[in-house]
Amino acid sequence: MNAEPSLGLFTDLYELTMAQAYWQSGQTATATFSLFFRKYPADRAYFVFAGLPDVLDYLERLRFTPRDIDYLRSLDRFEEEFLQYLGQLRFTGNVRALKEGTLFFVNEPVVEVTAPIIEAQLAETMLVNQINLQTILATKASRVLHAAQGRRLIDFAARRAHGVEAANKLARVCYLAGFDGTSNTLAGALFGIPVSGTMAHSYVTSFTSEIESFRHFAQSFPNSSTFLVDTYDTLEGTKKAVIVAREMKQQGRRLRAVRLDSGDLLELARRVRVLLDQAGLPEVQIFASGGLDEFEVDRLVQAGAPIDAFGVGTKVGVSADAPWTDCAYKLVEYAGRPVLKLNPRKQTLPGPKQDFRFRDSRATILRAIIGCAGQNLVGAAPLLDEVMRGGKRLRPDPSLDDLRQHFRRQFAALAEPHKALRCPEPYDVRISEELENLQRRVVEETRARELTSEK
Amino acid sequence: MNAEPSLGLFTDLYELTMAQAYWQSGQTATATFSLFFRKYPADRAYFVFAGLPDVLDYLERLRFTPRDIDYLRSLDRFEEEFLQYLGQLRFTGNVRALKEGTLFFVNEPVVEVTAPIIEAQLAETMLVNQINLQTILATKASRVLHAAQGRRLIDFAARRAHGVEAANKLARVCYLAGFDGTSNTLAGALFGIPVSGTMAHSYVTSFTSEIESFRHFAQSFPNSSTFLVDTYDTLEGTKKAVIVAREMKQQGRRLRAVRLDSGDLLELARRVRVLLDQAGLPEVQIFASGGLDEFEVDRLVQAGAPIDAFGVGTKVGVSADAPWTDCAYKLVEYAGRPVLKLNPRKQTLPGPKQDFRFRDSRATILRAIIGCAGQNLVGAAPLLDEVMRGGKRLRPDPSLDDLRQHFRRQFAALAEPHKALRCPEPYDVRISEELENLQRRVVEETRARELTSEK
Repeated sequence: MNAEPSLGLFTDLYELTMAQAYWQSGQTATATFSLFFRKYPADRAYFVFAGLPDVLDYLERLRFTPRDIDYLRSLDRFEEEFLQYLGQLRFTGNVRALKEGTLFFVNEPVVEVTAPIIEAQLAETMLVNQINLQTILATKASRVLHAAQGRRLIDFAARRAHGVEAANKLARVCYLAGFDGTSNTLAGALFGIPVSGTMAHSYVTSFTSEIESFRHFAQSFPNSSTFLVDTYDTLEGTKKAVIVAREMKQQGRRLRAVRLDSGDLLELARRVRVLLDQAGLPEVQIFASGGLDEFEVDRLVQAGAPIDAFGVGTKVGVSADAPWTDCAYKLVEYAGRPVLKLNPRKQTLPGPKQDFRFRDSRATILRAIIGCAGQNLVGAAPLLDEVMRGGKRLRPDPSLDDLRQHFRRQFAALAEPHKALRCPEPYDVRISEELENLQRRVVEETRARELTSEK
Repeated sequence: MNAEPSLGLFTDLYELTMAQAYWQSGQTATATFSLFFRKYPADRAYFVFAGLPDVLDYLERLRFTPRDIDYLRSLDRFEEEFLQYLGQLRFTGNVRALKEGTLFFVNEPVVEVTAPIIEAQLAETMLVNQINLQTILATKASRVLHAAQGRRLIDFAARRAHGVEAANKLARVCYLAGFDGTSNTLAGALFGIPVSGTMAHSYVTSFTSEIESFRHFAQSFPNSSTFLVDTYDTLEGTKKAVIVAREMKQQGRRLRAVRLDSGDLLELARRVRVLLDQAGLPEVQIFASGGLDEFEVDRLVQAGAPIDAFGVGTKVGVSADAPWTDCAYKLVEYAGRPVLKLNPRKQTLPGPKQDFRFRDSRATILRAIIGCAGQNLVGAAPLLDEVMRGGKRLRPDPSLDDLRQHFRRQFAALAEPHKALRCPEPYDVRISEELENLQRRVVEETRARELTSEK
């Protein structure tokens, strides 16, 4: 028996109360649930799909330990027979999903789960939690990449992400979306991402003088030092960095960069570049950090700031301008019967579905169409692929480098107006005729059945 | 040897590069670091301190496993002798901190760590990560509590929090700040928080009719059912709930509540209340959810909406209007020498410190003063308490119920203008004369030393 409750319990209690009601009323047939995003947050016209390996791990391992069952029993809300059943439950269903790094649009299903309804229902909380978080962060990272125009990017947000788990997943999806590395050592070890980092203000202030702190650091890292120069005054600090850099040069060593972490980064970068060049140190790079996001990186790049690399932290780590989405996991078919919600602003598309892309010869997306799962649209590539059958992965997860290349191709294939940082043009996603007909029919049937009082 | 890298590696790489530089230059004396919040996010004039147990757990367990050391060795950046040292490192320092649930203001230290500089430096990433996250969420939760004016509150954000870890910590700090429960079953099991939940739209749509879905649920939960009534149409759904509630009543059972999850909650709650009352069901409560935050809860409560309980999710779970803070962990003393940064907008207060509160006879806060650690201000209560010495907790953590009561007293003692949801009045935090003199002296010395070019 485990000492700690397991991830099986990471589910909203209503998934379990529904499960008991399904079970007791014999409502246990196969169901399909669709996971999709209803709306774009501000300034977004696409999403980058991420989070699939955590979902598949969860489904493969889903179970309630004796410790979990004891806890549920203590709530005095569940029947003993149902708890016995729950103790034996495993996920036995199928999953179709996008490949991580794929760009997608609102209302397109990104994961579809087909399984006995109780298994699929219980998974809702974890699936939405992981896909929502990782997709938000990957999408944010892709915007920074777009703004940086090829300059190096390092994830600096370990301390400001919402927990250790979020920090690690952030580092992974930033790398997937083209960042060069992370400051998060644990994420480096977990995912094989390049790690990066040099010194903080505390290091500088601990020494009795700034220049001595630089000299000591250079001794420890003779060829990989970046000096943080804004502890007392950025230009004064740079002058000291220049002195030490020349001392290093005389010894056949090289200062890699100086880091600016505050103030007017455009103006300071220009003045620091002049100081370095005048001192015969054109090889010393300028690294900038401090409150950066895609908007600020874009401003600096557009203004021609002589900055070689950016460390982006806080605002990217929590996707500050869009920390949540309207991501939903909805039942679309039960026992072969397509179903939907009628709520006027949240109406869902019934039945299992497929996302289609029509592309031109350069792979640029021409049209996006949501169709029915069985449909075949001539000339279009389907995006949802079966990744799990009978509760088991069909193949190992792609490598992070594979996903990184996949994202790069995907991103290149999206036209610029949809990638604008402010007010991007929404992509016109259509619904196939077959799906439209199905939806009309199910809406009519449901209205006729449910919207007449006094039954 | 562990299969997975350990939490020891959850540190920005620069903490480790600094550690090697400290170590190689013999810069290994005792240091004090202060953790504090520089600024308020929008619409905030106080914070609620949270996250301490995770910090103390981390410090007590801090170590680098052989697996961690192997990973660091593979980076080809660290000296073998330093890695040997790191493999033996434990946290041996002292920690002074606020009690969780304590209200505090900008610039007040909330945690001070005194330890050999390498140990204290390495802890930065995890300490900021946990205190920042949990304080943000506890502060947000306190605002919802304030708006709800005594109505029941349930945390519904498990799926939208940034990961499983964030969801669990959210549920805990919401309860600490006065919520009645959570939908997150795992958090319920981990922390002994009451759990709550009934049904989702998928449950309703899986049945061939809404009324049958209610009847089946009532059979499974004869005395604890809440029917979700907006799947097809809120008022039509309520009429069906009324039919089933009367059937239940005839059997001596009772429908607990109906839940509204969309639309104009004020208008719908009024009409649903009338339907329930006219049907002789005054005991059936109204539960509301769907995109709620403190602003919307306030609007509904002020308008007298007949809502008995709120489920708050997404926007509270990520603190949507303030998902990050300017939380910092700065060196304030090294080897007995007080230190600071000079950066004009981010100047720090030197030396170990203490937070003081002057209160009136009803415990209302009259004045808040930041002083030096050793100071004694007559009539004032110090807030930072030693919680760890020599790397070990001095006592067990307080219970969650104790912390909940502590928060309630703290919150009652803050005057209303500082709790306003919009544009609250900032609290005037003063610096003691002793600290002011120390700061002036250290600023002058540092300027004289660092701000003259050509050394």
